[in-house]
Amino acid sequence: MNERSEQAPDPTTPTVAAAAAAAAEPGRGTRLDPWLANYADRTHGMKASEIRALFAVANRPEVVSLAGGMPFLAGLPLDNIAELTQKLLTERGAVALQYGSGQGEEALREQILDVMALEGIRAHSDDVVVTTGSQQALDLVTRIFVDPGDVVLAEAPSYVGALGVFRAYQADVVHVEMDDAGLVPEALEQALSRLGAEGRRVKLLYTVPNFHNPAGVTLALERRPRIVEIARRHGVLVLEDNPYGLLGFDGDPLPALHSYDPEAVVYLGSFSKTFAPGYRVGWALAPHAVRERLVLASESAILCPSMMSQLSISTYLSTCDWRGQIKSFREVYRERRDAMLGSLAEHLPAATWTVPAGGFYTWVTLPAGLDAQAMLPRAVTGLVAYVPGTAFYADGQGQDHMRLSFCYPTPERIHEGVRRLATVVNDEHDLVRMFGTGAATQVVRGTQAPSPNQA
Amino acid sequence: MNERSEQAPDPTTPTVAAAAAAAAEPGRGTRLDPWLANYADRTHGMKASEIRALFAVANRPEVVSLAGGMPFLAGLPLDNIAELTQKLLTERGAVALQYGSGQGEEALREQILDVMALEGIRAHSDDVVVTTGSQQALDLVTRIFVDPGDVVLAEAPSYVGALGVFRAYQADVVHVEMDDAGLVPEALEQALSRLGAEGRRVKLLYTVPNFHNPAGVTLALERRPRIVEIARRHGVLVLEDNPYGLLGFDGDPLPALHSYDPEAVVYLGSFSKTFAPGYRVGWALAPHAVRERLVLASESAILCPSMMSQLSISTYLSTCDWRGQIKSFREVYRERRDAMLGSLAEHLPAATWTVPAGGFYTWVTLPAGLDAQAMLPRAVTGLVAYVPGTAFYADGQGQDHMRLSFCYPTPERIHEGVRRLATVVNDEHDLVRMFGTGAATQVVRGTQAPSPNQA
Repeated sequence: MNERSEQAPDPTTPTVAAAAAAAAEPGRGTRLDPWLANYADRTHGMKASEIRALFAVANRPEVVSLAGGMPFLAGLPLDNIAELTQKLLTERGAVALQYGSGQGEEALREQILDVMALEGIRAHSDDVVVTTGSQQALDLVTRIFVDPGDVVLAEAPSYVGALGVFRAYQADVVHVEMDDAGLVPEALEQALSRLGAEGRRVKLLYTVPNFHNPAGVTLALERRPRIVEIARRHGVLVLEDNPYGLLGFDGDPLPALHSYDPEAVVYLGSFSKTFAPGYRVGWALAPHAVRERLVLASESAILCPSMMSQLSISTYLSTCDWRGQIKSFREVYRERRDAMLGSLAEHLPAATWTVPAGGFYTWVTLPAGLDAQAMLPRAVTGLVAYVPGTAFYADGQGQDHMRLSFCYPTPERIHEGVRRLATVVNDEHDLVRMFGTGAATQVVRGTQAPSPNQA
Repeated sequence: MNERSEQAPDPTTPTVAAAAAAAAEPGRGTRLDPWLANYADRTHGMKASEIRALFAVANRPEVVSLAGGMPFLAGLPLDNIAELTQKLLTERGAVALQYGSGQGEEALREQILDVMALEGIRAHSDDVVVTTGSQQALDLVTRIFVDPGDVVLAEAPSYVGALGVFRAYQADVVHVEMDDAGLVPEALEQALSRLGAEGRRVKLLYTVPNFHNPAGVTLALERRPRIVEIARRHGVLVLEDNPYGLLGFDGDPLPALHSYDPEAVVYLGSFSKTFAPGYRVGWALAPHAVRERLVLASESAILCPSMMSQLSISTYLSTCDWRGQIKSFREVYRERRDAMLGSLAEHLPAATWTVPAGGFYTWVTLPAGLDAQAMLPRAVTGLVAYVPGTAFYADGQGQDHMRLSFCYPTPERIHEGVRRLATVVNDEHDLVRMFGTGAATQVVRGTQAPSPNQA
């Protein structure tokens, strides 16, 4: 999709600048809506991301995007997959193109057990539900547990897509402190005690234990059983979201939270990062009674997951070296992580960042006084994109942070992107030092039509 | 999947009888649920269909299933589709296997306009949202419009999958009378006036205008503009669900409700019946502001629809004779409809039924005193399955009805299935005539272990 982004910046640059300025203006293009009075209350929490319009610009090939979480697929054996798929359709087409069961194909659920065994999970295929990406599993778990006003605990920061789901179900997200070793057990204990004393109903602890999105950190081994025990003791189900767990750069995967107490945890997995997101296949592993409700909720939402997608992945798992493919992805992403960290050290010494041991992201803390969200239009004009930290909090925190992803661009593009980013950050930093906090923000917000030479 | 159902009944018959009896017993296999106190209120409306366990039995090859809505796929050019798919993956694999946009692929949305043009719809591709089957579109529309306690109007009877969605969002479904010409405009007007006078908030009119599931009837041409006008005048959005519209047996499709007032209608379409359900691709066409919210809701629910599925269908539409394929499906289903109606006339003269001019289903009214739900275990023991009418009402009506589908079994199997069904119905009818209403039901409910010779 963004293959062309390897090209050098081209003469469309002034257009990017103008488009970025226009995208940064809110409220444009709204039409009259005759159904405005009829929407459900829950839609008030659904709003387009403020940075959405900007990303349409950021996807242009001349922009280095350090924003997206698209996996690098060029390494897949596409010819082999094409041939397997042809065979599948020729030999079992009438099954692959038919409706399937709401829970998902038994054969695939058995194979999912093999994948999860790599993280110490022992389970039965009857407790697995196949979903339309693990995003749908997030939606379904929230649907069956969360009433409006219920509390969901999440790390600070947390995955933007999960925060969107919690908002759509009118949950109240309370963030819990995390550090370089992940979620802090003492902070969790305190939050639960405080909320309990306030009489709040806490339904879920949502956590990404491995190679956190966006924070890039991993929950330490010794903290894992403690987190599970604390949540269970307070009657709160753990929602363990683990799309990146097999993409560690050093050593074996850590045991899943699920492995410590299968009755206390709903585990979410995905083929999007270890194989390919285009099939939209993820899964939930849940305590049996929860699993039964997840299937009912999924049947109501989509009838059944795609048989074609499920059988394609099942065929891939049974005939290709999927473990070898994951190893090769790890090498690619490790090299890109190293390029990212090296470039940051070289060009952005005024900032700090986390050192991810796997996954797709690093979390950057800007020098005091800088506002990553306000700076984004200028960055896009400077032909580099990132996600501002505010996207990853439910409560407006995160202005001095940004998420940088190293999964998709080549190491050369990463170097170039960080170099461009450093120019923007350092310019802003100079303004702040000269005029004080907020000056840079105001200057950028006043920039309606950047001149071409800013690029 | 059920290819083997062409086989004659085999010696496993006694097992079917025992399994049917066991499946008819409620409450078996329940385990203790440590999270029982934590579920959301909306889960109280989510329950497994009472007939679900029975259908596991009904799917055995020796049972003629007149229950399911699986399309007949053996007529598809599978080798051709296999080759196209191989080419797609070889040439555009890195796009097909990547994330896509939440709204769906522009190229496919353009092609969807061509499909809808056959029913008189003129629209812009920007107002189309691609969904994971049209079931997901049903879920999303309900999600953005329905608060708990809001009213949704639906035909009596109505599609079981839609009723499940409305229940999951805690809507109050109010049925509106339909006759052989579809939804009755006067009944709609009365219902809306009455509900308005009661101060109820009516959010949606859900309707399946063509070849209704389960009723088999079609909304008359002259009623179409009236239905749209009445709903709009009362401030109620029309939700037009049209999976079967192109599968008419006589003449051209009727104009969609959407064609009369695009601002008053959300139209749902699907490739599941005109091509194949295994991709899970459907769509919604909505007024622009509604469409914007549908995309946000869909991104929250699944991030994006499957690119692999979308590009597979897009390729099929652009390179295969999809109009010719639909014609060939029509011929197949017309022949099966004729087999169904002929068999009913021959074997079940005591019942009445609708005469569908397209689609998959006929709606049977049993002789007075018979209870289709209570009779189902005996029917399955007699190696034939159907869906009892109660599944299609939100309020417990429909006991004297059953839905028979003619889409999947061959004409020979349909004849055999109706013959078996007639044996069961006529036996029950004899009991009712001898012992009065309710007698048959009690006899069946007391049958815990049918003897093999009942089959």
